[in-house]
Amino acid sequence: MSRYLELVGAGDVEGVLALFSDSASVEDPVGGPPGTHVVGLEAVATFFRNGFARSRPAPELSGPIVTTGGDEAAMLFTLRLELRGRLFELDVIDVVTFDADGRIASLRAFWNLDEARPC
Amino acid sequence: MSRYLELVGAGDVEGVLALFSDSASVEDPVGGPPGTHVVGLEAVATFFRNGFARSRPAPELSGPIVTTGGDEAAMLFTLRLELRGRLFELDVIDVVTFDADGRIASLRAFWNLDEARPC
Repeated sequence: MSRYLELVGAGDVEGVLALFSDSASVEDPVGGPPGTHVVGLEAVATFFRNGFARSRPAPELSGPIVTTGGDEAAMLFTLRLELRGRLFELDVIDVVTFDADGRIASLRAFWNLDEARPC
Repeated sequence: MSRYLELVGAGDVEGVLALFSDSASVEDPVGGPPGTHVVGLEAVATFFRNGFARSRPAPELSGPIVTTGGDEAAMLFTLRLELRGRLFELDVIDVVTFDADGRIASLRAFWNLDEARPC
């Protein structure tokens, strides 16, 4: 999960995609509009390529990575982003399920742009 | 969600249960052993009564409550607990789904006792 944040921060789409399983799903944000819940590595690839083309996210781990006895884990991080020329910080909680090979089977990102704060 | 932490901190089982829907499910911890995933308000009630009888948890919000455009939200908090006479802190990420009446339909708690730290 820390590697995921590193690669996102570096804008390394291929590196990010290598962390995901072929049948992976991404929901980013959770409860978001159509197009924010994608299933299958090809759709996940398009999702990240489009996202990285739009903005250069700079995530920083701002809380613990909380593992479990199962195949899921969760973490809190903070994203810096520019909106209409101003810099904002946004808290994100990612919940991740791993497959038997340790690849990401599903990633669900909890965030709400209404909760972004100027910085 | 902050009310949930307040009521847990106060040991107010009835107050906690009033936040949940009749068909609520609780998974605490996620990926835990049998008995830690309960479904239905009666089973949820037994789960909390047993838990509160064993220990007096003192949760403190240690990160943001992250809402979404859907019916789910997530938060980070820290639990103080005593294990074999020593005091530990444990990070927990709770993921909650709400029903149409704003009651908790499901609560999933991410934590791992292996990650508890002495304090």
